[in-house]
Amino acid sequence: MIFIDACNRKETSYTPIWMMRQAGRYLNEYKEVRAKVGNFLDLCKNVELATEVTLQPIDILDCDAAILFSDILVIPLEMGLELDFIKNEGPKFRQCIRDENDLNILKPMAHKRLDYVYDTISLTRSKLDKKKALIGFCGAPWTLATYMIEGQGSKTYSNCKKMLYTNPKLLHKVLEKLSNELKIYLESQIKAGVNAIMIFDSWAGALEKKSYFEFGFDYINDIAKYIKSKYPNIPIIVFPKGIGGFLYAFNQIEKNFDVFGIDWGIDMQYAKNALGEKFVLQGNLEPCRLYNLNTMEEGIEEIVRIMGNKSGHIFNLGHGMLPDLPRENAIKLVQIVKEKTKR
Amino acid sequence: MIFIDACNRKETSYTPIWMMRQAGRYLNEYKEVRAKVGNFLDLCKNVELATEVTLQPIDILDCDAAILFSDILVIPLEMGLELDFIKNEGPKFRQCIRDENDLNILKPMAHKRLDYVYDTISLTRSKLDKKKALIGFCGAPWTLATYMIEGQGSKTYSNCKKMLYTNPKLLHKVLEKLSNELKIYLESQIKAGVNAIMIFDSWAGALEKKSYFEFGFDYINDIAKYIKSKYPNIPIIVFPKGIGGFLYAFNQIEKNFDVFGIDWGIDMQYAKNALGEKFVLQGNLEPCRLYNLNTMEEGIEEIVRIMGNKSGHIFNLGHGMLPDLPRENAIKLVQIVKEKTKR
Repeated sequence: MIFIDACNRKETSYTPIWMMRQAGRYLNEYKEVRAKVGNFLDLCKNVELATEVTLQPIDILDCDAAILFSDILVIPLEMGLELDFIKNEGPKFRQCIRDENDLNILKPMAHKRLDYVYDTISLTRSKLDKKKALIGFCGAPWTLATYMIEGQGSKTYSNCKKMLYTNPKLLHKVLEKLSNELKIYLESQIKAGVNAIMIFDSWAGALEKKSYFEFGFDYINDIAKYIKSKYPNIPIIVFPKGIGGFLYAFNQIEKNFDVFGIDWGIDMQYAKNALGEKFVLQGNLEPCRLYNLNTMEEGIEEIVRIMGNKSGHIFNLGHGMLPDLPRENAIKLVQIVKEKTKR
Repeated sequence: MIFIDACNRKETSYTPIWMMRQAGRYLNEYKEVRAKVGNFLDLCKNVELATEVTLQPIDILDCDAAILFSDILVIPLEMGLELDFIKNEGPKFRQCIRDENDLNILKPMAHKRLDYVYDTISLTRSKLDKKKALIGFCGAPWTLATYMIEGQGSKTYSNCKKMLYTNPKLLHKVLEKLSNELKIYLESQIKAGVNAIMIFDSWAGALEKKSYFEFGFDYINDIAKYIKSKYPNIPIIVFPKGIGGFLYAFNQIEKNFDVFGIDWGIDMQYAKNALGEKFVLQGNLEPCRLYNLNTMEEGIEEIVRIMGNKSGHIFNLGHGMLPDLPRENAIKLVQIVKEKTKR
C-alpha cells in the first residue's frame, strides 16, 4: 500500500493523498445515504451504510486511503454521556463533567460497546481495494475531555481551563479514564483490520504550550507508545490542530509515532524545517482553496515545491472538507497531486 | 509615560503592564455602569459612562495604560450596517456584504459619525493621570470584513474565504473601503488625545500565511505607514491573533509599527527569538491562568524569565480578560509584574 509505505518513509511512485472528512456532505452520494437514517449517530452505528460512505471517496476520488466513517464522540457516548447532534449547533451532551461526583456517570469498558465500529472496519476492509489503506482513528483525550466538560463545542473552553488551572487532578482523572479506553479502542480497531491509526487533537490549540504538553500531548504519546509496543507495524498519525505557536517544541519529544499532521495555519516550509526529519508530514492544503480551481492549483504547487516529490510527505488538506466545496475540484485535487509528484 | 517609553524601547524602571479587556465584566464596578444603559452599544456611545469604565481599571488595578472603551464594530456600524448585540450570541449585523451590489449599503465618511469616540477620548485624557497612557484602537480591515461578510462571528469563515478565493477583487474593495475609513478614524483618535494606537486583527488566524499577508497584513501595514508618516511619535501596536504557524515570516516585513502583540498560543521564547529584535513584544499570559493565583504566578515567572527585566517588553495577557476571572488576581497580577521586573 503506497499510503503505508509513505508513513514508513519508503520510496513511493508518487506522494499519496487522502482528505480529512473525505466522506461528507460535499458528495451527493453521501447525502443520499445520510438521508436514509434519522441522525448522524444512526449513520455511524449502521455497519452497512457506514461502510458504504467510507468507501465512496475511494470510488469517486481514487485517493490512497479510506478513513473509517465514525465520530470521535462515540467514546464519551459509550462511556455513558448521552449525546445529541443538533442541526447547525453541533454535538451536545445532556450531562457534563464538572466535579468529582460527575465521574460516577462514566461507565468503564466503553470499548466493549463499540462493535458497530469494529464491524464497520471488518466489512470495509473486506470490500476495499487491497492497494488502499484503511485508517482507523480516535479523538485525543484532551479534545474528548473538552466536549465532556463543556458539554458542547466552546469558544473559550473556560470550564475546561478553569478545571485545568484550579483542579488539575480532576482533569488528569478524566484524561486517564479516556486514555485507558482509547488504548483498547485503537487496539480493537487494529484487530478488526485497520492498517494505520490517526489521533485527532482538534482542540490542541486551545492550550498554551506548557499546559498542552502536560494535559494534551503526554496522553497522546502514552497511547501511541502503547500501540507501538504491541503493533510496531501499524503507522500512527498524530494531528494536533492549532499548535503553530509552539510547533518547534515537538522536535524535542520522544518519538512514538510516525506521521505528524500539519494544519493549514502552519507554513509548510516552517513545518518541514522544524519537524520534517523527525516525522513524515501530512498536509496541509487550505480546504477553502478548493472553492476555486486556480487557487487550488496554486496551493498544490506551493506544497509540492516545498515538500518535493520525495518520501516524507503525505498530501492532505490542512483541515476537513467543507460541505459546499465543489466535488469536481476534490476529484481534480487527487489527480493533480498524483501527476505533479510522479517520480 | 512608562508605557510610551517601553513602546519606544527606552529604559524604564519596570516592565509596564496593562490588560486586554481590562474594562469588563470581571469588575463589579463595570457591571454597575453597564446596568445603567440598555445595550452594549449604548455604553460605547455614552461619553460619560464610556469614560468612567475606561478609567476604572486604572483606579482598581493601577496598570500603566488605559484603553479606550469602545468596540471594533463601530466602524462597520457607522458605515451603515445595523448591528445588534445579542446576549450569549455576540454581535450580529442585519445585512451583510456578499456581492458587488451590497457595497452600495456602505456609506462613506463613517469617521465623521464617530464623535462619541473622540469625545470619550478627550474626556478620558483630561481625567487620566498624566503618567498613564491612553491607547486608542481599531479592528484591522480583515477582521472587520469577516463580520461584515459573515454577518456575525463564524467558525469556518467560509463566506469570507469563498469570496477571497473566488472573487478576490470584491474582498479587496471591501478591505480598501475599510482601510480608508480606519486611517482617518485613527488619525481622529490621535487628534482627540490618545497616546498610542493598537490595531486588533482578532481573526488573523483564520487565514493561511500567503492569504493573510495579501488580504490581512498588507492593509494593516498600509494603515500603520500612513499614521507613522503623519504622527511619528505615536507608538503603534499590532496584534494579529492566531498567526503562530507563520510568526517567523513577520521578521521579513517592512517595519511600520513599534510593538507586536503576542497571543498566549505562541511560545514567548519562540516569539522573542523570531521578532524580539525587530519589535517590542507585548504579551502574553494565558488569561485562564488567572483562575488560580499559583498558576498565575508560575505564568508570570516564565514570561519574566524569558523577556527579562530589560526594555523590549510590555506585559499583557495573551487575549482579553474573561468575565469570571477573579478581580483580586487581576490586581495581584499588576503588583507582581511591577515587583518582579523592577530594575
